[in-house]
Amino acid sequence: MQQRPHRAAALVIGNEILSGKVEEANVAVLARALRGLGVSLERVVVVPDEVETIVREMKELSASHDFLFTSGGVGPTHDDVTIEAAAQAFGVRVVSSPEMEQMLRAHYRERCTEGHLRMALVPEGASLEVTREITWPTIRVRNTWLLPGIPEVFRMKLPVVVSWVAAQVGGALAFVSHAAYVRLDEGVIKPMLDRVVAEYADVSVGSYPKWMDPAYKTKVTFDGRDEARVLAARDAFVALLPAGEPQRVE
Amino acid sequence: MQQRPHRAAALVIGNEILSGKVEEANVAVLARALRGLGVSLERVVVVPDEVETIVREMKELSASHDFLFTSGGVGPTHDDVTIEAAAQAFGVRVVSSPEMEQMLRAHYRERCTEGHLRMALVPEGASLEVTREITWPTIRVRNTWLLPGIPEVFRMKLPVVVSWVAAQVGGALAFVSHAAYVRLDEGVIKPMLDRVVAEYADVSVGSYPKWMDPAYKTKVTFDGRDEARVLAARDAFVALLPAGEPQRVE
Repeated sequence: MQQRPHRAAALVIGNEILSGKVEEANVAVLARALRGLGVSLERVVVVPDEVETIVREMKELSASHDFLFTSGGVGPTHDDVTIEAAAQAFGVRVVSSPEMEQMLRAHYRERCTEGHLRMALVPEGASLEVTREITWPTIRVRNTWLLPGIPEVFRMKLPVVVSWVAAQVGGALAFVSHAAYVRLDEGVIKPMLDRVVAEYADVSVGSYPKWMDPAYKTKVTFDGRDEARVLAARDAFVALLPAGEPQRVE
Repeated sequence: MQQRPHRAAALVIGNEILSGKVEEANVAVLARALRGLGVSLERVVVVPDEVETIVREMKELSASHDFLFTSGGVGPTHDDVTIEAAAQAFGVRVVSSPEMEQMLRAHYRERCTEGHLRMALVPEGASLEVTREITWPTIRVRNTWLLPGIPEVFRMKLPVVVSWVAAQVGGALAFVSHAAYVRLDEGVIKPMLDRVVAEYADVSVGSYPKWMDPAYKTKVTFDGRDEARVLAARDAFVALLPAGEPQRVE
């Protein structure tokens, strides 16, 4: 019997996402990385750059999930309030990390400003996580990772997160996903889906209509952590289809 | 004196978003449409296809915001549970709309299945909103709109939403946004930003570093509903910059 998968939440921090100026680009990447480790992303919340709101959300999400990943608000300017919020959420002070301060001074040398040194501020007692390749620390407070919002930097940091999460969850089974594509609409396949859903309670079945695609009308997905069961559910669905279907499976 | 802007929330419903199989594509479009009406999107929550979770979230978000927009879960299959959840959240039954049932029968004719007719289900008492151009109804329950997740259909429906929201908020001032691009990093411009932020409390100032772009290092944005103040804040920032900056303004 498999254990219930670990549960994660993501907290996206930034007025630029809520105003539609910037398209959120980190959650899907995080979600896929977590699924590869058998961890299920259960909830995402997007909030503005407001300390009080972030504190409340961080407390709630870190307490109700095994892991919390935040994105955004870790730079040195007035709208970067994630470090301060994390400190309040976990009831600690904001302090300057001597290790990070030294790295900043070495990097900026005579150009180093007080603004630059703000990037050494961390919640007191935070873990500064590095790997051999990624030596600029990523900040973790207990089960909560404070990741940068810039997509390129978020992606660069992800291996540090993945290596830590993998160690936490041990050899959890990754989620696997299979699919069948049909030229039938959802109203037609509903009774077939219902039969498979009833029979395979351990497989998550999703149905996604495609808008105006000549290749197929509906993509039906089968997800779970036991690949044999996932494939059996997909094949049970395929067996119920009329002649000429599916268009393809994967 | 301007009134406080109306506040909106979005609830994105779908396992496919949380698993990273599909990139969320509706929130930014909604956010921009709302800002054009002077409405501020304040919170986004993404949840799985689980009735109980959606009910709790819908109750909370519709009570705490002027408007709530949901995306996803309005089709006919087992994983489409938004209608049921909305009915529970607002304490009404799910009923079949005779008007929508008639439209479905007219569209599918002899191919019409029970599955198709599930698309006529609505929370009892819901408003079925249409425009002259968009005649397939979009469902609204009080301040809460139930929009489809498919991005093409979401975009098609948006004018119905915009026309209703515009009527609700009257002639609210749209948000405007201006920006300055500089080749300085955030650590350097922080003191200049702080001065502008202190002086222009009614303008929202954002600072966004760009990763590895030869054209600029940081984009500084100025947002508000009084264009003269927004431009004054931007120009006050520009006046503090060293020679050769900004690279450009907009």
